[in-house]
Amino acid sequence: MPPHAVSSSSPSPSRNGHFQRRSLWLDCDPGHDDALALLLAIGNASVRPLGVSTVHGNQTLSKVTTNALKVLQLLGCESVIPVYAGAPRPLQGSLEQSNQTCPEIHGECGLGGPRLEECAVPPRTDVPAIVAMHDALKKAYEEEGQRPALVATGALTNVALMLSVYPDCVDFVEIVFMGGAVGEGNTGAVAEFNIQTDAHAASIVMEHGTRMPVTMVPLEVTHTAIATKEVQASLARHGRVGNVVNEWLAFFADTYRDVFGFLDGPPVHDPCAVAFVIDPSIFTDVRHVRVDVETASPLSLGQTVCDVRGKYGRGATRSRNVNVCFAMDVPAFWRMMDQAVDATEQSTRVLNSF
Amino acid sequence: MPPHAVSSSSPSPSRNGHFQRRSLWLDCDPGHDDALALLLAIGNASVRPLGVSTVHGNQTLSKVTTNALKVLQLLGCESVIPVYAGAPRPLQGSLEQSNQTCPEIHGECGLGGPRLEECAVPPRTDVPAIVAMHDALKKAYEEEGQRPALVATGALTNVALMLSVYPDCVDFVEIVFMGGAVGEGNTGAVAEFNIQTDAHAASIVMEHGTRMPVTMVPLEVTHTAIATKEVQASLARHGRVGNVVNEWLAFFADTYRDVFGFLDGPPVHDPCAVAFVIDPSIFTDVRHVRVDVETASPLSLGQTVCDVRGKYGRGATRSRNVNVCFAMDVPAFWRMMDQAVDATEQSTRVLNSF
Amino acid sequence: MPPHAVSSSSPSPSRNGHFQRRSLWLDCDPGHDDALALLLAIGNASVRPLGVSTVHGNQTLSKVTTNALKVLQLLGCESVIPVYAGAPRPLQGSLEQSNQTCPEIHGECGLGGPRLEECAVPPRTDVPAIVAMHDALKKAYEEEGQRPALVATGALTNVALMLSVYPDCVDFVEIVFMGGAVGEGNTGAVAEFNIQTDAHAASIVMEHGTRMPVTMVPLEVTHTAIATKEVQASLARHGRVGNVVNEWLAFFADTYRDVFGFLDGPPVHDPCAVAFVIDPSIFTDVRHVRVDVETASPLSLGQTVCDVRGKYGRGATRSRNVNVCFAMDVPAFWRMMDQAVDATEQSTRVLNSF
Amino acid sequence: MPPHAVSSSSPSPSRNGHFQRRSLWLDCDPGHDDALALLLAIGNASVRPLGVSTVHGNQTLSKVTTNALKVLQLLGCESVIPVYAGAPRPLQGSLEQSNQTCPEIHGECGLGGPRLEECAVPPRTDVPAIVAMHDALKKAYEEEGQRPALVATGALTNVALMLSVYPDCVDFVEIVFMGGAVGEGNTGAVAEFNIQTDAHAASIVMEHGTRMPVTMVPLEVTHTAIATKEVQASLARHGRVGNVVNEWLAFFADTYRDVFGFLDGPPVHDPCAVAFVIDPSIFTDVRHVRVDVETASPLSLGQTVCDVRGKYGRGATRSRNVNVCFAMDVPAFWRMMDQAVDATEQSTRVLNSF
Repeated sequence: MPPHAVSSSSPSPSRNGHFQRRSLWLDCDPGHDDALALLLAIGNASVRPLGVSTVHGNQTLSKVTTNALKVLQLLGCESVIPVYAGAPRPLQGSLEQSNQTCPEIHGECGLGGPRLEECAVPPRTDVPAIVAMHDALKKAYEEEGQRPALVATGALTNVALMLSVYPDCVDFVEIVFMGGAVGEGNTGAVAEFNIQTDAHAASIVMEHGTRMPVTMVPLEVTHTAIATKEVQASLARHGRVGNVVNEWLAFFADTYRDVFGFLDGPPVHDPCAVAFVIDPSIFTDVRHVRVDVETASPLSLGQTVCDVRGKYGRGATRSRNVNVCFAMDVPAFWRMMDQAVDATEQSTRVLNSF
Repeated sequence: MPPHAVSSSSPSPSRNGHFQRRSLWLDCDPGHDDALALLLAIGNASVRPLGVSTVHGNQTLSKVTTNALKVLQLLGCESVIPVYAGAPRPLQGSLEQSNQTCPEIHGECGLGGPRLEECAVPPRTDVPAIVAMHDALKKAYEEEGQRPALVATGALTNVALMLSVYPDCVDFVEIVFMGGAVGEGNTGAVAEFNIQTDAHAASIVMEHGTRMPVTMVPLEVTHTAIATKEVQASLARHGRVGNVVNEWLAFFADTYRDVFGFLDGPPVHDPCAVAFVIDPSIFTDVRHVRVDVETASPLSLGQTVCDVRGKYGRGATRSRNVNVCFAMDVPAFWRMMDQAVDATEQSTRVLNSF
Repeated sequence: MPPHAVSSSSPSPSRNGHFQRRSLWLDCDPGHDDALALLLAIGNASVRPLGVSTVHGNQTLSKVTTNALKVLQLLGCESVIPVYAGAPRPLQGSLEQSNQTCPEIHGECGLGGPRLEECAVPPRTDVPAIVAMHDALKKAYEEEGQRPALVATGALTNVALMLSVYPDCVDFVEIVFMGGAVGEGNTGAVAEFNIQTDAHAASIVMEHGTRMPVTMVPLEVTHTAIATKEVQASLARHGRVGNVVNEWLAFFADTYRDVFGFLDGPPVHDPCAVAFVIDPSIFTDVRHVRVDVETASPLSLGQTVCDVRGKYGRGATRSRNVNVCFAMDVPAFWRMMDQAVDATEQSTRVLNSF
Repeated sequence: MPPHAVSSSSPSPSRNGHFQRRSLWLDCDPGHDDALALLLAIGNASVRPLGVSTVHGNQTLSKVTTNALKVLQLLGCESVIPVYAGAPRPLQGSLEQSNQTCPEIHGECGLGGPRLEECAVPPRTDVPAIVAMHDALKKAYEEEGQRPALVATGALTNVALMLSVYPDCVDFVEIVFMGGAVGEGNTGAVAEFNIQTDAHAASIVMEHGTRMPVTMVPLEVTHTAIATKEVQASLARHGRVGNVVNEWLAFFADTYRDVFGFLDGPPVHDPCAVAFVIDPSIFTDVRHVRVDVETASPLSLGQTVCDVRGKYGRGATRSRNVNVCFAMDVPAFWRMMDQAVDATEQSTRVLNSF
């Protein structure tokens, strides 16, 4: 049995026997679905958010950092959960050219739709993002006796830098990321946006999968997490937070219909990765396979080449390294989301009543 | 409407109004399924085989040439259909290393199973294979007024050389090849054997698809053409030829079960490409898309990168070039094969009665 | 001692004991220096030109073919030496994009400067260029008992196609080409134009060097063959041909000064390769080394990576394959050129006197 | 005039008008020539060593860290200059395979020859190496008002990580590295060891050259810094330190003779980069050109592709980014080395007298 075939991510009793929430750090580039990932991480009682780091991607680092803070403020957490701005660009490539961003999907501000108030709390600057991530994750591991999760829903630049600067992370972190595709891509014929945006960083992260648990939640899963009209109607029930969520989804639905031809509603990619940490059992098909990231070929830069059959390929000599999710219980996922929207609405109502 | 979206391969009235058989040249590396492709091309009344060329691949050029001649002799055509030995190796690569071959699938001789007599007729050597191909195809076009088909069921080395030496071929030939994969590969994680064996040749052929009809019959189709027990029993009814076919399928079933885990029977890839020339209407999903062949990356060398959605990818600026088959009416295919086995059995019985 | 370390290109007694001219075929893309290569091959008594083929490069195939014929007519050979138009484009690459050409160096017509008459004789079309090349070279070998030389002074597309279609060429041809660079390139930082123009073809030719003599005359040599003012003055002495040569050199001097900053006169690359066939002893530093052509990296596409030290490199496991020329006796080269201009002038004067 | 064409590295008056030593941080993988670079940085009065970081390369991270401490102890600085162990492996590549090291040149311990005492002081572990580097360099800049130098004499992994984690470094650091080659390589046909060992890190560093001063001291320079018999005899005059230096050079001379065929003595690569910081005027030919690192092609991985002529190459559209040294005043360099050996011998004698 391969060493990391079974995720260690199930909630488990702590050292003193009490049930204990799983700690996670969220590395993201909000982004509409990143905002929902933040909401799920905050609204679900079985996980504990240690902090948030941001990364270039859906928009510039500056914009996505602003967005992360606005979302935390919407949920009343801006003073509790620290936000660090991480890498402004991919590892490789010209400093003179602008990064690839996604205004056609997320708008010029990166989180188009509802108007949110500016956050009064600034991002933290005491240490670089990767130092904050590392320190928080290490502390959580030492206190809790189980690997905290680093959930990445943007380009993997910050994650790769943390692993490179702190090689000991392999001993106490679990990585779960939204990104990649087994077959068809989205922003490339066979490449998915998050991986394509920093293929070299992604390659570093995959290589570490031979020494630590790394789980990939690819387009094959996230394209099933469609926010249909019914889903939208259901989420809208939950007061102010529900309304904002619904405005995000309406914006996202429009751009996904226009750009990608999704007619039934937009796929909400990023919260799927948080859902994996909350309850991996809703992922009904997870396989431990060899995944390599294409970094050399311009044709398929950022493809996550998955050797699905293993014994198939002639060149299949490298170790299996990544838990690849192939399917998810979609209704269970939406129940999880619905509960999180409700919970955050309840808690912000309490806060606002003071 | 894209220029080559509709294949020109349907049987059509000749210039003088009579129904006319479609001419084809078969470029192959027999190989069990190549042998069945030869049988289908010879046994089906709506196509006329102009000649056969061989190419390195399933086994060395010398072995597959011997096999092609043996198969023609089995079917009584060794004096009618000329056989030319083409390229002994891929375009690129060391002359000092042996080519990639497939003994684990086709046996050491390349056509393991029934013992066939040596063919008394040698391969033709009057001109190089590509000259013979070109001349025969051009003559057929001039006589028949419609594009003859060049059907390739091995590596595309000969085809690429013919197109490079005779640029005018774009005006009078249609190419149909078995090879490639939209998703999962067979001898590579995302690469199929025929294309992987000479990725550079395949790339040349795909590029020509902007100027001439090129049709790809990939693993997605050929992995549905399973020679089940029922199929095998049916084919076995047809006398001596049926028996040989069945021995081939038994050998092929064993190796495909052992190497690739196919439990229901082996996939017979190559005759699917001939079937497309005979009756393209049994291919129920054919799309004209951009296909590029990976030649630069060792990771995915020989991948046929298909930009399925077209408007999806950001970099989708290149012209569509290949008709990619996604699905086939499998029972209709097997009826076609059954008739061809019967027809060849009938005709060889007549020959043998003299 | 490596098998091809010593070139077999010295003039040698024929089978019947008489001294005999070395046969050569010239594959070129005229081009000013190609024109001089033609002149040298025609005007030097120790070599016998079998024929001329043309290839895309300095200008389109159509233009360079016209130029080759004009040059032959200038020298009175248009009816004696057959001209075949070869490949109109490199092996790989889009059919929809124009090839790389060099108008900034050779002018829009490819042979800017003196106005030459249109040639009354058309190019031959009885067989493809590579068939004509092969047949002539094979016949020369069989008649003369020594390898004739295939001298290539443009992209190696035709040469690669001939080697691929006729694998037996390794037994009876010697290849000498102008192209490549050990260090600095010209149209790329580390790439030379002829090789860069069809890197894949060049790679095929180099690989064949493990089985046949292949000699590279790179920029390191040809950048020493400067047509200085003194050289130009000397060549101008030789009547009508000398005048035309001088006009070519004047045009070439201007473009080389403007584009590449050559102040002392233009380098005449291509005749150096013919000079190697005429008298290899004027090449004072020739080493048999491993040469590979970069085909995968956009950064250095077409670089001729020369493993000069051999035992140096860690990865130096591949066989040595190419005789690389590092230095030439430049005065001896110019004496050879001067004699050839004189000889062609003499012979055309005789012709014109009829 | 390009922004960084002139190095800012000359000693300059400080803010309060007094002459001031230039601060530097040394990132290295000792290694014989790294040991000499340490010695030069410590023994020359015009530079001030802020600290030392180590990187995988000539030997494993553990061994080169041990060696750095031993050298500092030999020179009596182990309590004054902090040593941090940096990256144990290159950015990209398998965690399961061992890194490339150089035992054939530097011995199994990485610093073969004289037996040095174990250092009593351990490496610092309070923060990761790149944090220490960044903090020290930033503090030096703020105190001194001029860019301190980061001198790298091993693989560029640590440097690339520091630049990626701290993008503001472009505003206050100057980078000088030993590595790369304009022409011929050493451990590859066209690749030099330091760059080849982590080509991706080197690529990151070069890209930063469009925003900060980056100077490359390549093989073209360092292969002229030969420790001849005369040089060795001269250095040996300086007591205990001189003796150890000479034993290093004797070991290095043997391996360079055996592996690379250097008969006149070994080239001492790394101190040349320190010499550039001390006195750039001894570098007699420095050009600001475009340098790219090959990361995609296995053939020339780690080549530093230098577009020497700039206007030459057709694709020369990218900004110039690196000061490339082409030549050095070698006698001046050896005088500098001789003084440093003498100075360290003097100071350690003082220390040992207590």
